[in-house]
Amino acid sequence: MPLVNEHYLTLTGAYLFPEIDRRVRAFQAARPDLADRIIRCGIGDVVGPIVPAVARAMHEAIDELADPARFRGYPPANGYEFLRHAIAEHDFRGRGAPIEDDEIFVSDGSKGDCGHVLEILGPDNVVALPDPVYPVYVDTNVMAGRTGPAIDGGGYEGLRTLPATPENEFVPDPPSDRVDIAYLCFPNNPTGATIDHDGLRRWVDWANANESLILFDAAYADFTRDPSLPRSIFEIPEARTCAIEFRSFSKHGAFTGVRCGYTVVPKDLHGRTRGGERIPMHRLWMRRWTTRANGVSWPVQRGAAALYSPEGRSQTEAVIDHYMTNARMLRDGCAALGWHAHGGENAPFVWVACPRCEDSWTFFERILHEAQVVITPGLGFGRLGEGFIRISAFNHRDRILEVVERLRGMC
Amino acid sequence: MPLVNEHYLTLTGAYLFPEIDRRVRAFQAARPDLADRIIRCGIGDVVGPIVPAVARAMHEAIDELADPARFRGYPPANGYEFLRHAIAEHDFRGRGAPIEDDEIFVSDGSKGDCGHVLEILGPDNVVALPDPVYPVYVDTNVMAGRTGPAIDGGGYEGLRTLPATPENEFVPDPPSDRVDIAYLCFPNNPTGATIDHDGLRRWVDWANANESLILFDAAYADFTRDPSLPRSIFEIPEARTCAIEFRSFSKHGAFTGVRCGYTVVPKDLHGRTRGGERIPMHRLWMRRWTTRANGVSWPVQRGAAALYSPEGRSQTEAVIDHYMTNARMLRDGCAALGWHAHGGENAPFVWVACPRCEDSWTFFERILHEAQVVITPGLGFGRLGEGFIRISAFNHRDRILEVVERLRGMC
Repeated sequence: MPLVNEHYLTLTGAYLFPEIDRRVRAFQAARPDLADRIIRCGIGDVVGPIVPAVARAMHEAIDELADPARFRGYPPANGYEFLRHAIAEHDFRGRGAPIEDDEIFVSDGSKGDCGHVLEILGPDNVVALPDPVYPVYVDTNVMAGRTGPAIDGGGYEGLRTLPATPENEFVPDPPSDRVDIAYLCFPNNPTGATIDHDGLRRWVDWANANESLILFDAAYADFTRDPSLPRSIFEIPEARTCAIEFRSFSKHGAFTGVRCGYTVVPKDLHGRTRGGERIPMHRLWMRRWTTRANGVSWPVQRGAAALYSPEGRSQTEAVIDHYMTNARMLRDGCAALGWHAHGGENAPFVWVACPRCEDSWTFFERILHEAQVVITPGLGFGRLGEGFIRISAFNHRDRILEVVERLRGMC
Repeated sequence: MPLVNEHYLTLTGAYLFPEIDRRVRAFQAARPDLADRIIRCGIGDVVGPIVPAVARAMHEAIDELADPARFRGYPPANGYEFLRHAIAEHDFRGRGAPIEDDEIFVSDGSKGDCGHVLEILGPDNVVALPDPVYPVYVDTNVMAGRTGPAIDGGGYEGLRTLPATPENEFVPDPPSDRVDIAYLCFPNNPTGATIDHDGLRRWVDWANANESLILFDAAYADFTRDPSLPRSIFEIPEARTCAIEFRSFSKHGAFTGVRCGYTVVPKDLHGRTRGGERIPMHRLWMRRWTTRANGVSWPVQRGAAALYSPEGRSQTEAVIDHYMTNARMLRDGCAALGWHAHGGENAPFVWVACPRCEDSWTFFERILHEAQVVITPGLGFGRLGEGFIRISAFNHRDRILEVVERLRGMC
């Protein structure tokens, strides 16, 4: 019988969102009278729709696939040039971040890329992750055998923690001990925190001084409202020698069901062999994609490119305005209840301290039972997430108003 | 500096098809007068278009995404039930293969899945691969550290070989020594060979007797014309305890640019830990997908489901007829030149012995220079592929006729 990857057996419990789904279904089974009242502010799925510019581009792409003279077969493994160019121009060079078209790798979503990147890295790197953190970073490290066993109360041996707490405004400090790879996420999921240029520069300087790699998740960059804040780590040009960045169209583009994102791997970034040879990470990542996949769907890439057209950008701005107004309403609503609410200003998440010293799953269950609202318990994001909940702003306006109203009714 | 995955450095040369592209570009640069004459019968990309039933379903799906009332966000990690049901019903249960809907996992292509499957398997399995073979199986094993160093002349230490030669009609025998995992591909890429029920039963019996796992690649199953031949390993029901199957919509559905495939993991299939505990592979694979990805694009899944509608099946049959007529013409054309041609009857590839004792890259270059036709050199598929070339039938009819004509002109 073939041997399995036993690291999977180290994983504790189900991945967070399936566990939340299980609890919601259990509630609905126990209280069928309330089953239809559920409002979901948990997983952070968008309510759509895709904007007209995207829909039109995708329709045209399908017409092309249906036309023998314009049919497209296998896409390039790293994405079509027209999309990589639009990305590099608008998201990077237009903001002073020196990124070339061929440093962009288009994929079917940034969640995947966060895990795939471990494939080109060796097993013996010292890895540091924020706490609280997007659980995918942790679980993919466990599955790849980069950790020891689970620790009682949360986390895994072998991973270093970068504490993100109210005391540091949820912006971790660079570690003082040896770390090869550090994950950062700004605007942050789950806390909604942001990092400014000075803060980001401190991290880049630390990484270059220590020859460490920063895995920078900027999936929510487009929700940044404050023009003084960086949207990409490459707005610090020195990050070209120390960072990989992950980006997503899922939320601002309503692409959760369309599936597209991208990863930036600068050609100046190197790793090393045990023998000390410097290896360009760009070469390894390109090899990963040419060997392991066949690129992203043609209509999807055409739809993604339409997000960068003047029409697409204008339509998307309205979507971002909508969600960020939701976020402000949720934050203000929580604050009005005397709850300590963070985030929600440059990120579509509000991070709320549980009142009455409740733990986060208890507060999750109380909100589910009393208000029929699904949020995400902070413990699902790590030990330091305990005592908090995350509320997602991705919903219709009437639902958000109803959530605020129902939360008020709980208190 | 972070340590890289040094197994990538074990890989010899570029992945086959980029290397072919490089040589074609070099020829075009050297002979600009002939650059436009190139006909590609190499990589096996389809010429399209997608059939009308698929185009209509994809258009409708985009209209849904653009409609707030019908928008779809994150898909299920394992694919929508309507698609998994259509697959299980038509490709399996309707052919006597006992596969349930939730044993189907929809993905963005079977090339990806062939590599992903190694993630749930341990590093110390003994792996056997056919020779010649689809290079992705080999390269993904190398990248995952499942081999030793490269061997002069092709291949890697640590991998067992299952010879596929004219003597065994390109159907390898089950190995007599200990093997934990064996790859099989029928209808075969690159040789075009098929396996019958008795042959497949021998493999299933071997795997069950030895508690081995068969990774069965049936990406070309829909090109099987002979109704007596199995299309799935699960037409031998005992394969439920010993096999994983990979399937693709790329070729018969013209989905190379749409991106969709699926993998079948029966719930009766187990692996084991070093300590001897039996672990259901279905559980590991489900965990892989829920943690590492967010499912497949909504319009893509709707398009794939349309392939199973009566209209879609009828339209797709015509596509298959077209390519299989091409394959017969190529095979007959080669045979008329006195070349030994295999395959092409139940698979869209013709496998031709190089005349004049040429090696396969030499014959590749000669066909490129003399006929401006791109084929795939057999050595790219393994040491035992030396002395053969693969010609793909995926082209327009006039191109195939022109290829036959030009090959005749070479001799």
